[in-house]
Amino acid sequence: MASTSSITIPSPADFHVHLREGAMSEVVTPHVRVGGIDVAYVMPNLTPPIITTAHALSYQAHLQSLSPKTTFLMTLYLHPSITPAEIQKAAAAGIRGVKSYPRGVTTNSDGGIENYEDYYEVFGAMEKSGLVLNLHGEVPSDAERGICVLNAEETFLQHLFKIHKAFPKLRIVLEHATTAAAVEAVKKCGPTVACSITPHHLSLIVDDWAGQPFNFCKPVAKYPSDRKALQDVVASGHPQFFLGSDSAPHPSLSKTTSSPCHGCAAGIYTSPILLPLLANLLESFGALDKLAGFASLNGRKFYGLETEGLKGVEVRRVAEKDGGDLVKRYGFGKEGGEVVTFWEGKKLGWEVVRNE
Amino acid sequence: MASTSSITIPSPADFHVHLREGAMSEVVTPHVRVGGIDVAYVMPNLTPPIITTAHALSYQAHLQSLSPKTTFLMTLYLHPSITPAEIQKAAAAGIRGVKSYPRGVTTNSDGGIENYEDYYEVFGAMEKSGLVLNLHGEVPSDAERGICVLNAEETFLQHLFKIHKAFPKLRIVLEHATTAAAVEAVKKCGPTVACSITPHHLSLIVDDWAGQPFNFCKPVAKYPSDRKALQDVVASGHPQFFLGSDSAPHPSLSKTTSSPCHGCAAGIYTSPILLPLLANLLESFGALDKLAGFASLNGRKFYGLETEGLKGVEVRRVAEKDGGDLVKRYGFGKEGGEVVTFWEGKKLGWEVVRNE
Repeated sequence: MASTSSITIPSPADFHVHLREGAMSEVVTPHVRVGGIDVAYVMPNLTPPIITTAHALSYQAHLQSLSPKTTFLMTLYLHPSITPAEIQKAAAAGIRGVKSYPRGVTTNSDGGIENYEDYYEVFGAMEKSGLVLNLHGEVPSDAERGICVLNAEETFLQHLFKIHKAFPKLRIVLEHATTAAAVEAVKKCGPTVACSITPHHLSLIVDDWAGQPFNFCKPVAKYPSDRKALQDVVASGHPQFFLGSDSAPHPSLSKTTSSPCHGCAAGIYTSPILLPLLANLLESFGALDKLAGFASLNGRKFYGLETEGLKGVEVRRVAEKDGGDLVKRYGFGKEGGEVVTFWEGKKLGWEVVRNE
Repeated sequence: MASTSSITIPSPADFHVHLREGAMSEVVTPHVRVGGIDVAYVMPNLTPPIITTAHALSYQAHLQSLSPKTTFLMTLYLHPSITPAEIQKAAAAGIRGVKSYPRGVTTNSDGGIENYEDYYEVFGAMEKSGLVLNLHGEVPSDAERGICVLNAEETFLQHLFKIHKAFPKLRIVLEHATTAAAVEAVKKCGPTVACSITPHHLSLIVDDWAGQPFNFCKPVAKYPSDRKALQDVVASGHPQFFLGSDSAPHPSLSKTTSSPCHGCAAGIYTSPILLPLLANLLESFGALDKLAGFASLNGRKFYGLETEGLKGVEVRRVAEKDGGDLVKRYGFGKEGGEVVTFWEGKKLGWEVVRNE
């Protein structure tokens, strides 16, 4: 059987991306488009976090200036200061969602939430105005209670069920799922609940981040059976599951210090290689025919974006026999900062072609 | 209740330590004594590994020249070239044990073993001549079979049981146990089987090495319940459990590259702080009264070393109100090499006092 040599995807969308600020942002924001993506759903965990419509819009304008052809969809950071009125205002301004971070589990999550019921009034306003709730689905580690990074996601799922039961029409995304348990939970909830999946969680297991800080992210990659569950649900083409890369650049030095704070340099950077990486991975588990659904249509439908008449982006098998260029790292700023890209030094075998 | 301010331990022994070669060895070998230890049971995973009595003895002589007051107990590396005759020769020369590394699971284990039954003749000779079998108790990861660094030790335990059943009088040490399952397995086997425990596995869980390469070792630290099982068995004073630090220095750069090979820079360096670290840890879980048993007598008895009339080493609470000096890293060689010590930048609150 001849192998597929090209796939054209209707306006690819990445429904979970970190674009940072300052010199880092100047480098990574244009990489979304380099990686083949037209639409970026932007995370709000800046310093300080984005908790007002005005802040989200000014950040959006800044990102737009850095990459004019990319569509940036904005989010707020769930926070005690956010009122139902602010939700209405945000919805009217075109903001698409609100991201919830449990306190202390990942980058810039010190202001994260501790009790979801405190936000039920806000969730009600979101349900009414059509904003999506984006959940970082981990509870904080607590050794006394037996909770660590390996079971933090599964332990979180009770909160997903509870919020979904209280707000059945609220659209909820369980972000960057890493476990078989999470996949089953999302399926069980039905069509108002969805799940983003990263390429790195389709690729890694726990062994791959053991001693390898550049493969460390939150939630951590888990058992082989968990990776298999993620691959299987993508291969099934299930409409509740779609791409959210969680591409999260960090200065390389923050990844290799002998005393990092827990979780604060968690993240894997995939933006500049995103579609070729996905083509490579989906082909490896026989799901190349699901690339358009996973990287565009499933997410677009869930978020209520256009799915017809979209311009395509082509991802094409590299013609060179040697598989093409090596994945490289990127510099930023004037002081020698570097961001290491996932799969650095490897070859993807696929490349983005934009016919324009 | 007044807290203990000083403990004197009869000639402390570390029954699992890596002393390396070259410039690194010159620095780390004297650190065994700095850390309060008199007897070092030395691992054979050099390059090439120690597979002859002659090599073990020349290495021992070299270590002795680097630290004349330390007693070095030597081991061979289980390898197809080792014969029953070599075992007899080794025993006659005072070599104490043979270390088995499953292939590919940790530093310099490329020559490790794949099938234990191939070594039954050697094990028979060891049982007869009194050499101890030191097992690195992990099977190699195999994603297809669901095996990863998290369940590699538990999956290995079947091999421990099988070898013990075939050679009930062979003294076996399951090295650096990390799981509740391993603790139970060793207890079940009875007095010819023992278990070494490292200070870092009494301290760390999986969260602590997530994104922290200087806390990465093989076997990896696991769930809170596993750490609790290790602490509990030490606190119980069980005679089958004793100190083997697995202190394993690596050049700091090898720990922070973006593309380390799996497991090859696995290791945590504790030699220079060993007894104070143990005092700190055992106090934290109420087992300070078990320090002499854990760090000297249990292991000495198992290995058939002297337990009476030994000179003591004192570990004393630091008098300074601020807890004393910070744990530091060490340089080696002429090219700026560095070894990062466990708990770098923290204070131990205890110090070694040698009354001589």
